[in-house]
Amino acid sequence: MGILVSLTKVERRMNLHDYMAQLRQEIDQYLILLIKTSTDAPVLNEAMLYSVENGGKRIRPVLLLMMLEAFGIDHKNGMVAACALEMIHTYSLIHDDLPAMDNDDLRRGKPTNHKVYGEAVAILAGDGLLTDAFLALVEDDNLSADIRVKLVRALSMLAGSSTGMIAGQVLDIDAEKNPVELNTLKRIHHLKTGRLIEFACLAAGMIAKQNDEIMASLSEYAHHLGLAFQIQDDILDIEGDTDKIGKPVGSDVANNKSTYVSLLGLVGAKEMLASEIEAALAVLVKLPADTKLLKQLTLYVANRDS
Amino acid sequence: MGILVSLTKVERRMNLHDYMAQLRQEIDQYLILLIKTSTDAPVLNEAMLYSVENGGKRIRPVLLLMMLEAFGIDHKNGMVAACALEMIHTYSLIHDDLPAMDNDDLRRGKPTNHKVYGEAVAILAGDGLLTDAFLALVEDDNLSADIRVKLVRALSMLAGSSTGMIAGQVLDIDAEKNPVELNTLKRIHHLKTGRLIEFACLAAGMIAKQNDEIMASLSEYAHHLGLAFQIQDDILDIEGDTDKIGKPVGSDVANNKSTYVSLLGLVGAKEMLASEIEAALAVLVKLPADTKLLKQLTLYVANRDS
Repeated sequence: MGILVSLTKVERRMNLHDYMAQLRQEIDQYLILLIKTSTDAPVLNEAMLYSVENGGKRIRPVLLLMMLEAFGIDHKNGMVAACALEMIHTYSLIHDDLPAMDNDDLRRGKPTNHKVYGEAVAILAGDGLLTDAFLALVEDDNLSADIRVKLVRALSMLAGSSTGMIAGQVLDIDAEKNPVELNTLKRIHHLKTGRLIEFACLAAGMIAKQNDEIMASLSEYAHHLGLAFQIQDDILDIEGDTDKIGKPVGSDVANNKSTYVSLLGLVGAKEMLASEIEAALAVLVKLPADTKLLKQLTLYVANRDS
Repeated sequence: MGILVSLTKVERRMNLHDYMAQLRQEIDQYLILLIKTSTDAPVLNEAMLYSVENGGKRIRPVLLLMMLEAFGIDHKNGMVAACALEMIHTYSLIHDDLPAMDNDDLRRGKPTNHKVYGEAVAILAGDGLLTDAFLALVEDDNLSADIRVKLVRALSMLAGSSTGMIAGQVLDIDAEKNPVELNTLKRIHHLKTGRLIEFACLAAGMIAKQNDEIMASLSEYAHHLGLAFQIQDDILDIEGDTDKIGKPVGSDVANNKSTYVSLLGLVGAKEMLASEIEAALAVLVKLPADTKLLKQLTLYVANRDS
């Protein structure tokens, strides 16, 4: 048995993409279990599932599960937290796509939630995913009450209004109307993208009962990875393939949106990406964890084509 | 000291309205503390505070605190849960008022959130209150981790998508387009209004560590009180005073909305109200608690003019 497990681990290390695909499959299956059926409002369920099933790379939950494995804990212990995180991410996309916000018709190549179900149901589907994410977290009987409280606290703070994702959304709306400087752009992405990536890392640290110093390192790693993720997004808007990224290439330019590319140029943005990836890897090296796979994941973020 | 406390209790019993006013004042002050400031997105804070401060009767948090006192527990122990409940209620009103939903311009006589801050910020202010309500609950260090987990579980389930408030909102949207039968109307209000009233009662029971049998009675009481609350709302739409109820009298009739009055007539609705209040009082009597004030509160719900 021990040999089998070791072999599996070696195999995983040999192929990040296969391992990611395997985790994604587990996440997809578990997510569907967590979206509860409602005999009262089946259309609401359907709308919630529609967006959850139109999943992308599942970077956030995959990161959480890989970080947990890096600390030597079976990733199954983080499955609920990983799915709750993805539910929060999905709700934020549904609300972000609404006519009053980004007014997007397509998300990952498919009609956005409100295009299929109407605005009212889309707003409520977002509210439902947000609310049910916390329900999932506290119903995870595998974890102690103390850890569940910590997870709810971290997720609600990092996704919340004060210094969390929602604050980032508000800043982002402003930034779409007015050009912003580099520091503001970094702050927006720290909040809007980085905070949920931070939850992925911190949740793993909480479940693996890591100390404050390591938790601080996890936040630092997430900060750099989040920025790298966003810079690569901006680069893909210039150099990407419309079919792969699921939205028209050049839409940021068309919308006059401030991006790392518009502020630094393509070469400057690539330099900043390299520097953020380097900083992220430097934090990883210091962690008392088996971070080989995470190193590959970090590099993948910088080189992905979608 | 004992005498002073007793005197205060007697005084409270003598005047429900003064006691409610005192609790409301405490709730209002505490709510403002819980809406965290955000240096990143001050307009979001402002929008959240705007709707929270345009508070109504605070029936839900007052009920929670009174129920707690009935079980002999200082109401201060329920203040955070009471405020979290009011934050959830307030978020639901902000989203409910949106153009895609009820499209209301006025709420309690003041412009609705999106009329002041625009739709995008209003959606995010709702998301913020919803998320921060859970943050408040888990940050309540006065309660054990076990009780906090129970509270988050109850609030997310009762406000959630499966058999909670959000399912009721979806049903309500359908009902505005098509006339519904009495049983459907009752189901809508059980979910949309009753569920948060149920949280008020259950949260008090959880904090006061009541057994399953009593928790079931609390749900039953809340069910009847919630229906009574809604029936009186419908009656006020016919017999109320526009200035007092904060919206035009007769708006349900104008919108062809199915109500207890449209389905049962004014006399029939009043009979049903009396019967729900009677059923609620019958449950109260069985509770091992000092329910004199709650009896007055129950009667007040049936007789309020706003």
